[in-house]
Amino acid sequence: MNVTEYVKHLGQTATAATVYIGSASSAAKNAILATLAQLLRDETAAISAANKLDTDQAAKAGLSAAMMDRLTLTPDGISALARAVDEISALPDPVGKMGEMTVRPNGLRVGQMSIPLGVIAFIYESRPNVTIDAAALCLKSGNAVILRGGKEALNTNLALAKVIDAALAHHNCPPGAVQVINITDREVVEQLLKLEGTIDLLIPRGGESLIRYVNDNARVPVLKHYKGVCHVYIDKDADLAMGLDIAMNSKVHRPGVCNAAETLLVHADVADDFLPRFASLARDAGLKLRGCAQSLEIVPEGMTAATEADWGEEYLAMILAVKVVEDYAQAVAHIRQYGSDHTETIVTEDESAGLRFIGEVHSSLVLVNASTRFNDGGQLGMGAEIGISTSKLHAFGPMGIEHLTIKKHIAFGNGQVRE
Amino acid sequence: MNVTEYVKHLGQTATAATVYIGSASSAAKNAILATLAQLLRDETAAISAANKLDTDQAAKAGLSAAMMDRLTLTPDGISALARAVDEISALPDPVGKMGEMTVRPNGLRVGQMSIPLGVIAFIYESRPNVTIDAAALCLKSGNAVILRGGKEALNTNLALAKVIDAALAHHNCPPGAVQVINITDREVVEQLLKLEGTIDLLIPRGGESLIRYVNDNARVPVLKHYKGVCHVYIDKDADLAMGLDIAMNSKVHRPGVCNAAETLLVHADVADDFLPRFASLARDAGLKLRGCAQSLEIVPEGMTAATEADWGEEYLAMILAVKVVEDYAQAVAHIRQYGSDHTETIVTEDESAGLRFIGEVHSSLVLVNASTRFNDGGQLGMGAEIGISTSKLHAFGPMGIEHLTIKKHIAFGNGQVRE
Repeated sequence: MNVTEYVKHLGQTATAATVYIGSASSAAKNAILATLAQLLRDETAAISAANKLDTDQAAKAGLSAAMMDRLTLTPDGISALARAVDEISALPDPVGKMGEMTVRPNGLRVGQMSIPLGVIAFIYESRPNVTIDAAALCLKSGNAVILRGGKEALNTNLALAKVIDAALAHHNCPPGAVQVINITDREVVEQLLKLEGTIDLLIPRGGESLIRYVNDNARVPVLKHYKGVCHVYIDKDADLAMGLDIAMNSKVHRPGVCNAAETLLVHADVADDFLPRFASLARDAGLKLRGCAQSLEIVPEGMTAATEADWGEEYLAMILAVKVVEDYAQAVAHIRQYGSDHTETIVTEDESAGLRFIGEVHSSLVLVNASTRFNDGGQLGMGAEIGISTSKLHAFGPMGIEHLTIKKHIAFGNGQVRE
Repeated sequence: MNVTEYVKHLGQTATAATVYIGSASSAAKNAILATLAQLLRDETAAISAANKLDTDQAAKAGLSAAMMDRLTLTPDGISALARAVDEISALPDPVGKMGEMTVRPNGLRVGQMSIPLGVIAFIYESRPNVTIDAAALCLKSGNAVILRGGKEALNTNLALAKVIDAALAHHNCPPGAVQVINITDREVVEQLLKLEGTIDLLIPRGGESLIRYVNDNARVPVLKHYKGVCHVYIDKDADLAMGLDIAMNSKVHRPGVCNAAETLLVHADVADDFLPRFASLARDAGLKLRGCAQSLEIVPEGMTAATEADWGEEYLAMILAVKVVEDYAQAVAHIRQYGSDHTETIVTEDESAGLRFIGEVHSSLVLVNASTRFNDGGQLGMGAEIGISTSKLHAFGPMGIEHLTIKKHIAFGNGQVRE
């Protein structure tokens, strides 16, 4: 079988499985997930051994420490994965929900019902826990899923696939419900992107170049986010102590993730007071600052000069751009020009400024007086997330299990026809 | 300015306009729409004259009668367009809606708020009324829109653009809120499809080849539907008189549209009774039938033999494929194999069969005992529609004004940070 035939076969097998998984009861789906969680625990040694093959190879190939960290799956990590499966199982079933039915003037009763999307494909890089998270989320939402992990994680993914297959087989679920691609040929991705009419949604997770490649070549619907250039704006009426807390937490709590702040905007009225205190905290935390001319005047030491490129930069590191703005309007204009529609927060005691910011800034999460780090499905009460979308289509912000469904229209009549 | 620069400029002008139109009040948007409706009425003669240029040229070029019909805008048609604008103005404003706010354990109050998508592009073929419908729907939902009509309708579209521009200018709305592309160069479409990061949604309306071209080449998000291969299934427990009504209405009420039925499935238990009566009605209506072997046995005359290709065909004409199925399961399997996820109806007096059909068939509208012709935003109570999506993403079925918005997440805190 060549790659084209292989990928076509994956698609057909997935489509065939949607008939079963798409109408499986919550109990049936939860039973599969319970077995999956149990098997992950039972097979910890085998999965660890497979992961060691991957990490050994990666070490030989000289992968970066960050990449190694993403690739490594410890026994604790496997146990956390099993817990995540249990948590997904405990989520309400998103399929089959019906809202209110309304009656049209001709007596037709119309409404909507949530159904699975159908066949979902994930293309992701080294982190092998996506294999289990995505499988569990798709099963729970009644979708068939095709998983294409990074080549560095192939052994781990195949070990995880064995566990998934066993869980499906134990409950007589068609194996097409979850398929892990077992060849690393790049052409597989190319072919997946062309499976129009078969793949209902493709979700790429990984670096910007992967996501851009997918977006530029896909003929199937794609949900994605490129980057998070998130802003903290300290308003003139901010509680400055709160501002220090929120700015520091937004940046240094976990600097390598998409909801970490990348630019701090400070209202000119409070900059003289705020910036020296912030610079001192930054110095203690090992955070490097790149300031505008006015910031540099206020904090002449411990800050380097920002260039135009800094304002749009997603550092994902212990670096923060700092800019003094003349007023609220300039802060919002700056966010519009350089932001990525991901997450922005305003720190202010002026309620009307907070409400105005919420109304005028159109990012996937807009906050008043809280850290940007809350842009996360779990933190917002949505349960497990499959990613954070910055596309303003279908999902904007954390994509939860609900976003793996869509509403179809339904209608009950007693002979209605169009006049 | 070359085409690339021209299209880039369109995008920048549209983006700039989103700041105004995206936060305009309902009153401000409705005032623009009222002026637009009035100007359409006032300028009926000028618009008609421009349309005559287009129809004269089309007649010379030998366009088909169907195309001529789509292209022609009579004074009555212009009056209907003005009424449509008034109706869109009367719809509830979809922007700024907030659902329930919930409180997280840390005290953060979280919720969602609907916002415009931003910049929408429409690419459509000869029908010039889309120019006004799309402009009005986008304005009402706070979006900027770029409109690319068919080259056959250029004069009409430019006359309509003049009216739109005047309505915007009268209310000091930036002209970038609605831009009608005034050159017919094909490269414009190519460039529009690449305006990633600027166009939030592109909607193609037209023939299958246009939509396929857009889908295969777009780097911006696209919502589309290819075709409607809609089914009427006459169950063994059908009220046959109702079945005759629904099958005929689904097919002949307006055979050239996407929600018209293309295949009739009849349960074997009732085929002997139903099919001769249906064939007689079809003959009277001038409807041609293409039957399976079993249908041909029952109705030996007035029906030709269907081939495999007929089952997936969107005739958009007075032709209907007819197939006898052994049971309910075979009907659903046939729809799964050959349907286009658009619209299917079951005719049955057995309530459980109806509910099962509603649950198991995942088309954008699934009906019990009613005509497929109800798959329409107006008929389903959603107000004006911008198209019918068969993509299971963002919108599945009629796309109403709500689908030109997305929900962002919002959060109010008092200093919350991630631990």
